[in-house]
Amino acid sequence: MLQEIDQKVQQLMWDVQKRTLDRMKQSYDVNLKTSYKDLVTTVDKENERYLNQRLREIDPDAKIISEEGYGDQVNDLKGHVFIVDPIDGTMNFVMQHCNFAIMIALYVDGEPTYGYIMDVMNDKLYHGGNGDGVFVNNHQLNTPANNSLHDSLMVLNAGLTLDGGHNVREVGKQARGLRMYGSAGIEMIYVITGRIGGYLSYLKPWDLAAGMVLALELGLVVKGIDEQQVNVLSSNLVLVATKQVASDVLELVD
Amino acid sequence: MLQEIDQKVQQLMWDVQKRTLDRMKQSYDVNLKTSYKDLVTTVDKENERYLNQRLREIDPDAKIISEEGYGDQVNDLKGHVFIVDPIDGTMNFVMQHCNFAIMIALYVDGEPTYGYIMDVMNDKLYHGGNGDGVFVNNHQLNTPANNSLHDSLMVLNAGLTLDGGHNVREVGKQARGLRMYGSAGIEMIYVITGRIGGYLSYLKPWDLAAGMVLALELGLVVKGIDEQQVNVLSSNLVLVATKQVASDVLELVD
Repeated sequence: MLQEIDQKVQQLMWDVQKRTLDRMKQSYDVNLKTSYKDLVTTVDKENERYLNQRLREIDPDAKIISEEGYGDQVNDLKGHVFIVDPIDGTMNFVMQHCNFAIMIALYVDGEPTYGYIMDVMNDKLYHGGNGDGVFVNNHQLNTPANNSLHDSLMVLNAGLTLDGGHNVREVGKQARGLRMYGSAGIEMIYVITGRIGGYLSYLKPWDLAAGMVLALELGLVVKGIDEQQVNVLSSNLVLVATKQVASDVLELVD
Repeated sequence: MLQEIDQKVQQLMWDVQKRTLDRMKQSYDVNLKTSYKDLVTTVDKENERYLNQRLREIDPDAKIISEEGYGDQVNDLKGHVFIVDPIDGTMNFVMQHCNFAIMIALYVDGEPTYGYIMDVMNDKLYHGGNGDGVFVNNHQLNTPANNSLHDSLMVLNAGLTLDGGHNVREVGKQARGLRMYGSAGIEMIYVITGRIGGYLSYLKPWDLAAGMVLALELGLVVKGIDEQQVNVLSSNLVLVATKQVASDVLELVD
């Protein structure tokens, strides 16, 4: 049953990638959400309606949490819950036409079960979970080397770095280098492939859910900066990292 | 004469890309230069020796400035001067196997004349100058839209952002978003393609030379934060940006 859902959601991710690439060739509306730094487009909304409709066909009893408001009111993680980000990194989508992702996660009775991150412009679907491992398309990923902060590149949330809260600038200074890509999905991909040792950011459920499944499946650490396990529905400032980077970072942040 | 050199250097860029891709399949040494944040590999050195040798065949009277020490002692820009970066973004090359570039520029009697930036992993050569326009492979690029800082993503130097000098954090706060990719070549590509509105960083001659040719050819601004024209041999903190972003940023920095 779960494996059948997994196969169908993988196919859905390729279908939505193709739709998105086609849609980018036509014009679409761009609107501000909370500020001029927070955009939403017609494509976000169209993708979300499409994904939610297809997910309801695949798994009719599941609930859906999604970014743009077409999902269900969900207060707990009982049963099957899909968490959907129809375009992650909308600013990059609009300004760069690259460095954005589409993400779905399936949580079963609160357990991170399957995660899917589509790197649309690179034709790469990162997927896995449920003890099966993590794959990019058909190629299985290994657990990234357990490097220390000194031997790792870090991604830090831009606003937090500019404001200097939680002593995060010290994390940036001690890392081998600081990177910012502007899409949680792309940044999660960098961590699970070992290209970034740790990623610290404010993450909403749809930013976090898929990457959290894949990171945990690979034995990486997903923690709040209070060192507690993360609740995907109510996370705040989240660290996704190798064990050693997590230990090094959690000693520095306050 | 110059056009013949241009054709030969374009071919050289494709040759060195193929060598680099082949070389990445074998092992190579990684060494620290000035600190644990500053690496050099065997591939940097092999590429530089190869490029310099081929450039001497293409243009025997030219002088060569290059990062790893196999070039000439050059104190002025009289005649033909090639400026070579054999691997730009060596940290990314080592840690990410992507997001690095190979760059060459030709300055003639001090005039920015031809620039070449090879995005190795994406098979894309950005090249042009000398009034011919700027191309990615065979496709001509348009001048990026003259957006303001509020409507643009910015790349800021990571160390400067962490230290807070020159009021750069205010630039990051006013921009639509902050990005950091860790390679001057890749960051120059983002600016000349309009995906980033402005790039502010400390740039050595080999970091700056090729991107400066391409940016100027497209009518973008290349200035020091003292608002002076940049000398490619002795630049310090350099801004490459649309006219409007340059104006907005130069009002903010001190």
